[in-house]
Amino acid sequence: MSAPAPNRPKIVITRDLGPEASALIQPKESFEIVQWSEDRACGKSWILKNIPGAAALVVTVADKVDADILDAAGNSLQVVSTMSVGYEHLDVKAISSRGIKIGYTPEVLTDAVADISVMLALMAGRNVRETMQIVDGGKWPNYGWAPFLFCGPQIGSSPVSPRRTAGFIGFGRISHAVLARLVPFGITDCVYTSNPQSKPDPERDEGLRRKLGLQTLRRVDLGELARESDTVFVLAPGGPSTYHIVNEAFLKGMKKTAILVNAARGSLVDSDALAKALREEWIWGAGVDVVEGEPNVTQDHPLVRESRCVVVPHIGSATTESRIGMATLAIENAITVLTGKPMPKELVLC
Amino acid sequence: MSAPAPNRPKIVITRDLGPEASALIQPKESFEIVQWSEDRACGKSWILKNIPGAAALVVTVADKVDADILDAAGNSLQVVSTMSVGYEHLDVKAISSRGIKIGYTPEVLTDAVADISVMLALMAGRNVRETMQIVDGGKWPNYGWAPFLFCGPQIGSSPVSPRRTAGFIGFGRISHAVLARLVPFGITDCVYTSNPQSKPDPERDEGLRRKLGLQTLRRVDLGELARESDTVFVLAPGGPSTYHIVNEAFLKGMKKTAILVNAARGSLVDSDALAKALREEWIWGAGVDVVEGEPNVTQDHPLVRESRCVVVPHIGSATTESRIGMATLAIENAITVLTGKPMPKELVLC
Repeated sequence: MSAPAPNRPKIVITRDLGPEASALIQPKESFEIVQWSEDRACGKSWILKNIPGAAALVVTVADKVDADILDAAGNSLQVVSTMSVGYEHLDVKAISSRGIKIGYTPEVLTDAVADISVMLALMAGRNVRETMQIVDGGKWPNYGWAPFLFCGPQIGSSPVSPRRTAGFIGFGRISHAVLARLVPFGITDCVYTSNPQSKPDPERDEGLRRKLGLQTLRRVDLGELARESDTVFVLAPGGPSTYHIVNEAFLKGMKKTAILVNAARGSLVDSDALAKALREEWIWGAGVDVVEGEPNVTQDHPLVRESRCVVVPHIGSATTESRIGMATLAIENAITVLTGKPMPKELVLC
Repeated sequence: MSAPAPNRPKIVITRDLGPEASALIQPKESFEIVQWSEDRACGKSWILKNIPGAAALVVTVADKVDADILDAAGNSLQVVSTMSVGYEHLDVKAISSRGIKIGYTPEVLTDAVADISVMLALMAGRNVRETMQIVDGGKWPNYGWAPFLFCGPQIGSSPVSPRRTAGFIGFGRISHAVLARLVPFGITDCVYTSNPQSKPDPERDEGLRRKLGLQTLRRVDLGELARESDTVFVLAPGGPSTYHIVNEAFLKGMKKTAILVNAARGSLVDSDALAKALREEWIWGAGVDVVEGEPNVTQDHPLVRESRCVVVPHIGSATTESRIGMATLAIENAITVLTGKPMPKELVLC
C-alpha cells in the first residue's frame, strides 16, 4: 500500500451515503475523508468544526449550507455537492460568488418520482385512503357489494368518457415520464403550463404528441389547465415564483371529478385551500408526497384530516435504486472536481 | 303512448343498476319490470317470490342463483344475466342444462382492474401502508430525512438494476393490460403461466414482445415464475384448479425484493402463507384487492396485521365508468335475448 499523499484533499461528508457511494472514493489514501456516521443529521456545528481546510463538502437536504459555513471553509473549498435535485437548502448565490462549484443529482430520481406521481393519482381517484381505513379499522364486514360502492373516476378513457386529459404544472423531465406512463392507462390529451419566461416550442410538442399517440398536447395558461384536466400533476420547482400556485382560485376552476397530485414541493400548494376544496367537494381527491412545513405535519393538519387526501411522507425518490444513484452521483460530482475532470451534473444558474 | 302489451316479458332485477342501465329497457311498456330498490342485497326469498313466470333474471355477485330459483322460475326463464365477470355465484351447470342462456360482463372492467393492479404493485413496493400509518398517526415529525429511509425496490429498471421482470399467473385480457401499462415504468421482461390445458402460442408471444419492446416474454412453469419475477400479478380465474396456487412453496421461491399482487379472487392465495412470507421477509411486500373469505376480514386477519400488506376491499372494478359499463351490458345481455337479437356477451362453457 502506498503512503498517504502529504496534501490530501479533505472531503467532508455529512452522512453515511451507503457502500456503493463510498466505494467511488478511490484510491482512498489520496483523500482525507471526514464523515458523519450517525443515523441523523450532523447539525451545523459539526460542519463548522470540520469544514476548515476542506476541498469538498457533500451534503443532503437535511443540511443548510450558508455563508457561515463558507466563511469557515476558507479558500480551499472547491465544490459543494448535494445528494438532491432541489437546492433550497443551499445559499447558491453565496456559494457561486466565491467561485465554488455546485453539484446536484437530477435525472437519477426521475423514474422514482414519476412512479409515485402515478400511484398517488390512482390512489386519490380510487378512494384508497378511505377504503384502507375501512379495512384497517376492521369494518370491511359491514360493507356488502353494491353496484356503485367505493366508485371513483377512472384515470383513463372509457366508452363512458372517451377523452381523458392529464394536466401538468411544470413540464420537465418528471412530467414527461409521468405522461409516458399514463398513455397505456388511456390518457388521450395533455395540457401543461411552463415558466412564463420560457419560449413555447410547438414543434417539440407536436413531436411528443405524435410519439405518444395523444389526440392533443398543448401549452395553456393556469386557468385553462384547471378547467381541462382530469388529473393535475404539480411538478414544477419550488421558490417564490411558484409559491401557492395551486390556491383557492385554481382549485375552484377544476372539475368536480378531478384529482390533484403534488410530488414537487409543498410550497406550491396552499394546504388550507386544498383541504377546503376536498371538504366542499370542489374536486374529487388529492395525493401529496410533499406538504408545506413538512415534516411538521401532525394529525390535526388540514390535509391529514381530509380522508380524500392521501398523504405520504416525501418518499418520491425513495427507491433503493434511485437513492444509490443519487448518492453515487453526489460523490462523483465532488471527486471529479478534485481530480480535475468534468463534473457529471453541475448546477449552473441562469 | 301505446297500451302495455298483453304478454309482456317479465324482467326480475335484483338491484338498482343506475339510470344509464335502466334507460336501456325500451320501450318500457313492452316489459314487466320487477326490481329490488333498496341499497342492500335482496336475498333469496325475494327472488323466489318474484321469479315465477320471469323471462329474464338480472343479478349481481351478491345473489346466488341455484336450482331452487330455477325450479321456481319455471319454463319461462330464458336468460340469467350477471353484472360481473366472475360467475362463482351462479350454478352454471344447472342453468345451462335447462337451456337458459347466461350473460356476463367481461372486458368492460379490464382497465379498472389493470389500474388497481399497477397501483397495488407500486404501493407495496414503496411501503405505502407503513408510511401512511406514520403520517395518519401524526408521527411524520419524528422522521428526519435519511438517505435510505422508507426505501423500497423500484418497479422498473434503472442503472442499478437494468432488468425488471413482471410475472403473471394467468395471462388473459387484464394481464395484457397490466403489462402494457408497466412498459413505460421500465419493465423489460415478462414471464407468465397459463392453464396447463391451453396450447402454448409462441408466435403470439413473440408478436406481443415485439409490440411492447420487451427483451423477453416467455411462458414458464410456476417455479420459474416465482424465481424470475420482480412483481407477480395473480390474475387467473378462481375455482378448484387455482385454489391456493400461491402457497408457501411458491412464496419461498420468490425473490426477497419481490412484490405479490392479487386482484383476481381471494381463493388463489393462501392468506396464512402470505402473512408468514411477509413477516419472515421471504418477499418484500404485497397488495391484495381480494381476500379469501371476504368481506369477513377483520383487524385480526393475518393479512390486515402485516403492515407490508396493502389490503383494499375488492374495489378492482369500482370506477364509475366501469360499473356503468357493467350495468348497461348486464341489461343489454338480458334484453337482447328477449328481443331475439344476439347477446353481446354470452358465457359459453367449454
